[in-house]
Amino acid sequence: MRVTYGLRRAAMLRRNQVAFIDSSERRTWGELLERVQRSAGALQNLGLGDGDFVAILMHNNMTYGELNYSVAWAGGVIVPLNTRLAAPEIVFQLNDAGCKAIVVDDSFVPMLDEIKANSDALKHVIYVGSAEPPEGAHEYESLVSAAEPVADADRSYEDLMSIFYTGGTTGRAKGVMLSHTNVVSNALNGLNALQYASGDVYLHVAPMFHLADAGTTFSVTMGGGQHAFIPGFEPEATLKAIQDFNVTHVILVPTMINMVINHPAVKQYDLSSLKVVIYGASPIPEAVLQKAMDTLPCDFIQGYGMTESAQLVTILPSEDHKHPPGSKESVRLKSCGQPIINTEVQIVDENDSLVPTGEVGEVCFRGPNVMQGYLNMPEASAEALKDGWMHSGDVGYMDDDGYLYLVDRAKDMIISGGENIYSTEVETAIYSHPAVLEAAVVGIPHPEWGEAVHAVVVLKPDQDVSVDELIAHCKTQIAGYKTPKSITFESEPLPKSGAGKILKRDLRKPYWEDEDRQVN
Amino acid sequence: MRVTYGLRRAAMLRRNQVAFIDSSERRTWGELLERVQRSAGALQNLGLGDGDFVAILMHNNMTYGELNYSVAWAGGVIVPLNTRLAAPEIVFQLNDAGCKAIVVDDSFVPMLDEIKANSDALKHVIYVGSAEPPEGAHEYESLVSAAEPVADADRSYEDLMSIFYTGGTTGRAKGVMLSHTNVVSNALNGLNALQYASGDVYLHVAPMFHLADAGTTFSVTMGGGQHAFIPGFEPEATLKAIQDFNVTHVILVPTMINMVINHPAVKQYDLSSLKVVIYGASPIPEAVLQKAMDTLPCDFIQGYGMTESAQLVTILPSEDHKHPPGSKESVRLKSCGQPIINTEVQIVDENDSLVPTGEVGEVCFRGPNVMQGYLNMPEASAEALKDGWMHSGDVGYMDDDGYLYLVDRAKDMIISGGENIYSTEVETAIYSHPAVLEAAVVGIPHPEWGEAVHAVVVLKPDQDVSVDELIAHCKTQIAGYKTPKSITFESEPLPKSGAGKILKRDLRKPYWEDEDRQVN
Repeated sequence: MRVTYGLRRAAMLRRNQVAFIDSSERRTWGELLERVQRSAGALQNLGLGDGDFVAILMHNNMTYGELNYSVAWAGGVIVPLNTRLAAPEIVFQLNDAGCKAIVVDDSFVPMLDEIKANSDALKHVIYVGSAEPPEGAHEYESLVSAAEPVADADRSYEDLMSIFYTGGTTGRAKGVMLSHTNVVSNALNGLNALQYASGDVYLHVAPMFHLADAGTTFSVTMGGGQHAFIPGFEPEATLKAIQDFNVTHVILVPTMINMVINHPAVKQYDLSSLKVVIYGASPIPEAVLQKAMDTLPCDFIQGYGMTESAQLVTILPSEDHKHPPGSKESVRLKSCGQPIINTEVQIVDENDSLVPTGEVGEVCFRGPNVMQGYLNMPEASAEALKDGWMHSGDVGYMDDDGYLYLVDRAKDMIISGGENIYSTEVETAIYSHPAVLEAAVVGIPHPEWGEAVHAVVVLKPDQDVSVDELIAHCKTQIAGYKTPKSITFESEPLPKSGAGKILKRDLRKPYWEDEDRQVN
Repeated sequence: MRVTYGLRRAAMLRRNQVAFIDSSERRTWGELLERVQRSAGALQNLGLGDGDFVAILMHNNMTYGELNYSVAWAGGVIVPLNTRLAAPEIVFQLNDAGCKAIVVDDSFVPMLDEIKANSDALKHVIYVGSAEPPEGAHEYESLVSAAEPVADADRSYEDLMSIFYTGGTTGRAKGVMLSHTNVVSNALNGLNALQYASGDVYLHVAPMFHLADAGTTFSVTMGGGQHAFIPGFEPEATLKAIQDFNVTHVILVPTMINMVINHPAVKQYDLSSLKVVIYGASPIPEAVLQKAMDTLPCDFIQGYGMTESAQLVTILPSEDHKHPPGSKESVRLKSCGQPIINTEVQIVDENDSLVPTGEVGEVCFRGPNVMQGYLNMPEASAEALKDGWMHSGDVGYMDDDGYLYLVDRAKDMIISGGENIYSTEVETAIYSHPAVLEAAVVGIPHPEWGEAVHAVVVLKPDQDVSVDELIAHCKTQIAGYKTPKSITFESEPLPKSGAGKILKRDLRKPYWEDEDRQVN
């Protein structure tokens, strides 16, 4: 099935109900369908369609929601870009996918010169905003107004729907190829767990370039819900949006939940419409959950997944957030839940053999939601996907009741404020400074972001560089959120395994000893 | 995805909850999983697996439910046979599919000699029952006890899961080929519409050889419901089963609903567990629905579909059964509802072009639930499936809100004096007379008008109405040219298919035998 059918069906069944709403506008499903038909016409008028890649570099907005459908409707493939990336990272992704067009909002106009100068395939810049369009850019609303509605290009189920870039263990970002079937299968999985229904309102506050939000988009539309948009996360704006739009469902990572419930104004907003807070990226600390349940009148559901699963792999249902502390079942709060309805999960050892229940191994999953592979990376794809099983790199075990417990991330990933940060990428940036001899990047506890990026560095003999200088250097290479927040310099070589691998566990240990949390 | 995963997941998430129950036994999901592993082992011990066809000829029972999983678990393809067929029809289907084994219960032992003598590929007869097995037959429980549990053969998503024979417009039964993806896609569609949840109990009373029931099997398991079994439909046994098993969901065709609610003992049973009656095969006459809603404390949902859609195409939700009579929306009760979540529906003319909303044409549908084709019938398959669109042969239109109205089955339209007459309209008029229990309208030869409208009617006990009175009543309901020109009263129930559809072909036959024309 293709994602565009979800929209067509919604417009048929709920033509006059609200589809999209933001602080200034609302559109019905009938209006949205017509806009998508014109938006697709506009893209086709620029020669975009039939498998062409269209990048989106915007903060959350209604047009982003529209493009999620219209790029596919035109026959193209959407490439949502992380809004926090540095220009060289954007350029890499545009070139890797061979994007012919990029859609930007005001925030990214200053980057355009660098992007255009370095992106070989880029033919069109489309500007979404109310200012004067940058030179050489098309203005989106004018394109849409001038275009005739076109018919759905009717891409086949197995055609690519989107490319989402994910940070790389290999040091480069990998383009996760998702077909229409992948995305729709995930939408059905999500719908089964969350049952968005007519009258429900989902708030797009999590970034739309991430699958946590993007995957949910298609569930909400298929289920008959309504989409509300705010540009991004800010605690009070989120509270206000919940009140103003009568939001029923919202995705927040635990650090965001923490910021919302501790905001001084939390009691000034009417949050009674809330039904479900979906959280992910990490289990929720018990204290945070307790306060959240006292403050927010709703259910809590955890989702675990990754870009390669088109969003979800497991779900920890709301019931498992309500066991009395100390009860046998309360331990489930430390898990990430049970396999979602149409996705299989298993734990294997290094020989790809199933391990017994309760034993630790690599988390693998398969199902119709599992990606087609990594763009232009046949070897990495073959390594990740064996017999249809996605090898997640995450390390964990399953209990007798099918609850999955993650004990470590094999891929050396740091999760800070809900963003995945791959330490190899940060290390590559640090190593590019001429004074650096050795570098290792680990996650250390952070009260607000869960984890913070910390680097341990050994300098070359007779070389010198300050912490600030090294951080500034990294910022020219990688997104700000990936750069180390702290650096310690060591004079001795870093501890290594017999095989010469840096023992990051030893580097992390002192930071985590006082934490009542699993060492990541 | 494969159907066996639904079972494995259920056994993981709900190991100790009841899976199957009948009048003498109950099994948990954990027990069922183990039995399926052994049953599959037993089949493999007989050399059955890897794409082999295994026919089932039984009335509803727990073992049928088990074989729905174990045949696939062994790697085979299940071929459920209609229990009302004559031996030559059974033989045709066994030979068409090349079935290597047939599983029978006591009722079909008398047919075995004729079946065995004429079925070329048949190697094994497996007997399910407590009597002495017929000569040369294996006894199922002994096979299962003797077998070791085996691993899931792990058929690929696109492998065949089942063959269901459907009555032929071409004069021969056609074997509808359904893949694992087809069946699981339908199960997810059904689950979305009906939301079987933990604690729900579905009663297998509709015949398990039909997809109405068979498709639901996989929805119920995936959703976490429980299966209750009775051998087949009988009004009081159905009432008793609803009470004894705390049934929440049941599928009944309108004629069965009619029999249940008019049964003298209906008030003696506690039916308070019922949540949903799902009905299909035809829209429900308003008078029947009204009485059903007064008698049964539950929602009513209509499903429309066919074997080729692995069950469902559209759903008329319970809300649409509650509009005040005479309201604009109350007309929806005459529709068969809106497209189910992941299946597209469109209406085309004879050139396969879309007709405008509201205009009559052939009902077509596509989606991941649509069959692979008809077994051994490439031409009929190509004719039915064009560009992935199943051409149903049913004639209807869709309104602005996506409601599908069947005006007739393509083969069931009466053309009289150049006017198209849709028999359902005439039947609705006849049913609106309080004395009528059952009615079917067919076209019979007429020297002047080509065809004339003829009705076959069964009256309620102790009721009386004359032909003239009934025709006069119809004239108050519909245009004169649509009213029956002749009526015959029958004292016996009208002939029905296993799914409870009135067999109009049988009613027409005597009138057309002397005609040198195609029987309509």
